[in-house]
Amino acid sequence: MQFVIQHTDRSCKARAAMLFTEHGTVETPIFMPVGTLGTVKTVSPRELQEVGARMILANTYHLYLKPGLTVLQHFGGLHRFNGWSGPILTDSGGFQVYSLDELKEIREDGVEFRSHWDGSRHFFTPEKVVDIQRIIGSDILMVLDQCIANPSDYASARQAHELTLRWAERSRERFLQTEPVYGYQQFQFGIVQGGVYADLRRESVHRLVAIGFEGYAIGGLAVGENPETRNEMTDLCTHILPEERPRYLMGVGKPNDVLDAIERGVDMFDCVIPTRNARNGTVFTPDGKLVIRNARYKMDNRPIQSDCNCFTCRHFSRAYIRHMFSVNEVLGLRLATIHNLAFYMKLVQQARKAVLEDRFGAFKSAFLERYVKNGSRGE
Amino acid sequence: MQFVIQHTDRSCKARAAMLFTEHGTVETPIFMPVGTLGTVKTVSPRELQEVGARMILANTYHLYLKPGLTVLQHFGGLHRFNGWSGPILTDSGGFQVYSLDELKEIREDGVEFRSHWDGSRHFFTPEKVVDIQRIIGSDILMVLDQCIANPSDYASARQAHELTLRWAERSRERFLQTEPVYGYQQFQFGIVQGGVYADLRRESVHRLVAIGFEGYAIGGLAVGENPETRNEMTDLCTHILPEERPRYLMGVGKPNDVLDAIERGVDMFDCVIPTRNARNGTVFTPDGKLVIRNARYKMDNRPIQSDCNCFTCRHFSRAYIRHMFSVNEVLGLRLATIHNLAFYMKLVQQARKAVLEDRFGAFKSAFLERYVKNGSRGE
Repeated sequence: MQFVIQHTDRSCKARAAMLFTEHGTVETPIFMPVGTLGTVKTVSPRELQEVGARMILANTYHLYLKPGLTVLQHFGGLHRFNGWSGPILTDSGGFQVYSLDELKEIREDGVEFRSHWDGSRHFFTPEKVVDIQRIIGSDILMVLDQCIANPSDYASARQAHELTLRWAERSRERFLQTEPVYGYQQFQFGIVQGGVYADLRRESVHRLVAIGFEGYAIGGLAVGENPETRNEMTDLCTHILPEERPRYLMGVGKPNDVLDAIERGVDMFDCVIPTRNARNGTVFTPDGKLVIRNARYKMDNRPIQSDCNCFTCRHFSRAYIRHMFSVNEVLGLRLATIHNLAFYMKLVQQARKAVLEDRFGAFKSAFLERYVKNGSRGE
Repeated sequence: MQFVIQHTDRSCKARAAMLFTEHGTVETPIFMPVGTLGTVKTVSPRELQEVGARMILANTYHLYLKPGLTVLQHFGGLHRFNGWSGPILTDSGGFQVYSLDELKEIREDGVEFRSHWDGSRHFFTPEKVVDIQRIIGSDILMVLDQCIANPSDYASARQAHELTLRWAERSRERFLQTEPVYGYQQFQFGIVQGGVYADLRRESVHRLVAIGFEGYAIGGLAVGENPETRNEMTDLCTHILPEERPRYLMGVGKPNDVLDAIERGVDMFDCVIPTRNARNGTVFTPDGKLVIRNARYKMDNRPIQSDCNCFTCRHFSRAYIRHMFSVNEVLGLRLATIHNLAFYMKLVQQARKAVLEDRFGAFKSAFLERYVKNGSRGE
């Protein structure tokens, strides 16, 4: 995988780079909107392009269940099925190991899921997860891992970490033994686990790097730990991860979390926060979040954010969006989603620009000062 | 109101005309998508433009409740609130007299509604309905009428018809005594009632025309009668309505119903069928309807309609739309809505072209033959 670092900020580990895939080049730091089931909820590919999204995330486990591999293979992969022509990264199902509490059973050879749609049983091995992602045709494949809640006791964290490493070896082997199904290159990322334990995290990095992946994800964060611990874990991982490979912090996060991690040398992010918050009627602005469904916006003829150039802010008032939520019109979900994604895209674009100009620290301070001033407190 | 008939088909009453409003000129026959609460469900104004919509319908009663008149007046009317810059027609609440069975009480002076949102009571007089529509700022205002189910007994139909006429006089008087709130012209349509009784329908037309409106609607159809009766009632109304004024058949209908009415000299239509069907997973094609959520489309990589140029058909397969419905992604509702509206817009555009070329009859036969051939039977 070609990954070219253009510049690292003089005062921190933040870096600006280019990641090349056959579906397009991506400038990092990048935020990937979450399109679990092949669509980023409520928006079309055209709207994703318009908000500045360049790469999206989809989910192996969910796509395997619906629409299923027969359909995806028939269409020549997810890109041709869902109309998104840019790069796609697929998570492995490892997060579902964590989130589908009642519906899974973990064994040495893999994990058995029970479908949340119909209760049917499906056994995922590390190898099978590679095979599925070959058929999905994602540009970046994630290995199957075991993600656990934080804090977990040391023994549990160690166990999950060890299993993740054994699975990582099997995943890489399968990846190297197989070819892309649709002719374009695919890349595979390993996932660092180890909970909140520095020694496990370090060991995880070293052993994954020894296996050798095109990029490395930091998993098992944003699952219960406090921000200080998250930053500490991120910091120690990026400290020893290879400079020249992309680093992806999975499932993070709030705007301030994203900036914290960029500062620590992370290149890639995904999170449901902008899209899920939007559907709950909460929108982001440089002055903090607004609960747009609140009655206080009933007469507010300003856009969500006055200097935002997104489709929503160019055409609609806070009052209109509030009305949409108030009468349950789905257009409201979309308008809020478009704005929140535009906000996140602009955030990482601005961060990138700041890195290129060696002023990431100042940018971050200025952003946070304004963002929390009005009571948002980085929430 | 300027309404210019360009041509009447040589072999039937179908006509092509231009209707001029200060928010734009509309070519008729026209189909108006229904935007009850200020938005055509699931789509944005840009998408409405793209499917070829030129005029939309909104609802006085619903907008009065939410967002309410204070908001609408603060924004300078509905156009500036919802971002739709083309003409808007507002129904009066008369249909809610019919549809809100438990929540209304009709008296000589008006109708009392109980809000379906919070149970609060609201009294609508014919005059108040005019005043509300002045504040909404619709281009075409409908009078308050009493719509009843078909068939109703003669006495009930006569009673509703008489009340509608008394209300029509009061509505027109109020309209003539008041001015537009926002500077642009507004027009008012009367509504013919009379159930399925020819003598009542004729009397209704004559008395409404004697009052004098900028246009005339045929109400009280598509509420239970069979198509033959509907056509008969439509026919006798258009036979005696003034040539030089627009005619609007309210709440109609299925593609074949629309063509039946165009043939009988109707210029304007609105109906929830294309949008509501879309949200239920049913889409229209020249070969009949498809239940797109059906498993038979799981692998179908064709667009909904191969020769359709809408956003949906240009970018998405039946299988992808089916997947969206199958996993409850709201993008599916929108993609189906866009296509169905495009289908209806093309239907009336083609009808118009056929009229201009004196071949409406042949067009209608050809359309219906193909439309029903595959089992759709005009449903």
